[in-house]
Amino acid sequence: MIGKLIEKIQRTGAPIVVGLDPQLKFIPPSILKKAFREHGETLEGAAEAIFQFNKGIINAVAEYVPAVKPQIAMYEQFGIPGLQAFVRTVEYSRKKGLVVIGDIKRGDIGSTSMSYAASHLGTVDVGSETYAPFGEDFATVNPYLGSDGVKPFIEVCNSHNKGIFVLVKTSNPSSGEFQDRLVDGKPLYEIVGEKVREWGEESMDPCGWSNVGAVVGATYPEQGRILRTVMPKSFILVPGYGAQGGKGADLVHFFDRDGLGAVVNSSRGIIAAWQQEAYASYGEAGYADAAQAAVLAMRKDISEALGR
Amino acid sequence: MIGKLIEKIQRTGAPIVVGLDPQLKFIPPSILKKAFREHGETLEGAAEAIFQFNKGIINAVAEYVPAVKPQIAMYEQFGIPGLQAFVRTVEYSRKKGLVVIGDIKRGDIGSTSMSYAASHLGTVDVGSETYAPFGEDFATVNPYLGSDGVKPFIEVCNSHNKGIFVLVKTSNPSSGEFQDRLVDGKPLYEIVGEKVREWGEESMDPCGWSNVGAVVGATYPEQGRILRTVMPKSFILVPGYGAQGGKGADLVHFFDRDGLGAVVNSSRGIIAAWQQEAYASYGEAGYADAAQAAVLAMRKDISEALGR
Repeated sequence: MIGKLIEKIQRTGAPIVVGLDPQLKFIPPSILKKAFREHGETLEGAAEAIFQFNKGIINAVAEYVPAVKPQIAMYEQFGIPGLQAFVRTVEYSRKKGLVVIGDIKRGDIGSTSMSYAASHLGTVDVGSETYAPFGEDFATVNPYLGSDGVKPFIEVCNSHNKGIFVLVKTSNPSSGEFQDRLVDGKPLYEIVGEKVREWGEESMDPCGWSNVGAVVGATYPEQGRILRTVMPKSFILVPGYGAQGGKGADLVHFFDRDGLGAVVNSSRGIIAAWQQEAYASYGEAGYADAAQAAVLAMRKDISEALGR
Repeated sequence: MIGKLIEKIQRTGAPIVVGLDPQLKFIPPSILKKAFREHGETLEGAAEAIFQFNKGIINAVAEYVPAVKPQIAMYEQFGIPGLQAFVRTVEYSRKKGLVVIGDIKRGDIGSTSMSYAASHLGTVDVGSETYAPFGEDFATVNPYLGSDGVKPFIEVCNSHNKGIFVLVKTSNPSSGEFQDRLVDGKPLYEIVGEKVREWGEESMDPCGWSNVGAVVGATYPEQGRILRTVMPKSFILVPGYGAQGGKGADLVHFFDRDGLGAVVNSSRGIIAAWQQEAYASYGEAGYADAAQAAVLAMRKDISEALGR
C-alpha cells in the first residue's frame, strides 16, 4: 500500500495529506442550516452537515493531493450517525481516487487489536459472508501496549495490502512527558522508533519502503531528523503543520534525499482556510476553493523548503 | 462516579467487572441462527446476535456484580451495526443498574481527545440541542500522548460526574517492551502511575477516592503491589483474571487493607463459561446461568484470597 501512496505523491508533486477533522464551527452556515432543516438539530443533522462539507473539500482537493486523513474522533463525537458520516467520507474519498488514512489511534491486545485491524483495514466474516466495515487504506496505531497491539495490524497489512502509521513522537506540547523520557540514555520515542523499524521489516512493499510507518510531529524537527535515520524504510506521517505551528522549513529533515519518506498533514489550515484572513475573499460559498488554494500554497511551501 | 462504583461493590460483596467482549464463537448457535434468520448473515445479524447474547448475560449477573465493561473493539469490528449494539448494551446495562466501563482505550490530543471524552462520558451540542451519544460511566484512556490527551477526559469527569481508568501496566505478555523500560531507575509504568496520582488530584470524589483510576494487569501482581502505593487514591481496574492466567491469590496486593482499591475484570471466563468443562452441564440454553455461576465462583475466589 505504501507504494500506492508514493506513486500518488509523485504524480501530484505534493507530499500532503488533507486532514478531514471537521468541527461544526468550520462548516459554512448555509450547509449547517440545510442539514438541520432536513434532519433537525440532531446527531443525524450534524453528521449530514459534516459529510456535505467534506464532499466539497474532497472534490476540490482530490486532483492535487494523494491522500486524506479523517480523524475519527470528530465523527465519533456525534455517535452512530457521526460514524456513518465517517464511513461515507472514507467511501467517497476512495471513489475520488484518494488514499485514506484513518486517524483512529487504536491499540489494544491480541484478539481485540485484531478486531480493530480487521474492521478498519481488513475484513470480518459473518457466517459465510465477508465484509469490510470501515475500509481505510492506512490506520494510525498507538504503541503503548507493545508488539501484541501492533502485530495484528501488521498481519492485516500483509493479508490485505494495507499500511499503518505508529505513534512515535506526537506533535502536542505534552508529548514529551513520557515519549522524551530517557531509557538507557535514549529517549523513549527512539526506542519506539527502533521497534517500528523492526516491525516494518515484516511488511515490506515491493517499492522498497515498509507498510509500517510512523507519526512524528512537525513541531519537533530535530527529533524528526534523528527518527528519519532510525527508521530508514518507514514513511513518516507528519502532523502539526500550519495551525499547530510547524512550517515548511521545519520539515526538511523528515524527508530523504529523494524528497520521499514523509507525508505532511494539515487539517484546519486547509479545511477551515475560508475562515482565515488570507482566504477571506473566497467567502463561505467558496470554502472548498479556499481549501484548494491552501493546498497549493502548502505544496509550494514544502517544495521550496525541499529545494525542488 | 467512583463513589457509586464503590457503593455497588460493597452492596454486592464483589469487586468484579464482567467484560462484555462478545465474539461470535462464544454465542450459542440458537441465538446466532435466530439473528441470521431475521437479518441474514450481515453485520446487522452479527450485531443483533451480540446484543441478544449480552442481554442474557446482563440479566443473569446484574444482581451480583457492580459493573460491566464492554470492549468496544468487539462491536466496532462489525461496523456501524456493531457500534449500535454497543450503544444498546450500554443503555441496557445502565437500565439494569450496572455501572458501565467503556473499554475504549482512546487517547488523542486537545480538541480531538475532548471529542472522545464528550461523546463517551459527556455530552455534545448540536445547535441548541444536547446529546449523550455513548453514555458510559467510565472509559479507559491511553496515556502515551501525555497530559494533553488525558486532561480533556478529566474535565468531563468533573463536569458530568464520570471516571476514567488510565492504562498503566497492561496484562499482555509484551506490555514490558515499553512500559517496563527504566527511566531514572524506575520503570515507565511507575512514571505513568505517578502521573495518574497527580491527574487524580484534579478529580476527587467526596468518598475520598479519585475518579481517575488505573489499569494494571492481574498477570503482574508484583507491579500491582508497587502501583497500589504509588497511586493511593486511585482505583485499579485489573484485567487478566481467568483466561489470561491471573488468579485470586495474585490479586491481594491490588487491594488496600479495607478490601477496596481494586475491581477485577473477567471476560471470556464468565461470558463463555458455558463452553468450559466445569460448566458444561448448563448446556447452550443455560449460557447465562453458567455465567452467573462463574461470577459466584469468582467472588468466592477473590473473597478467600482477601480473607473475607
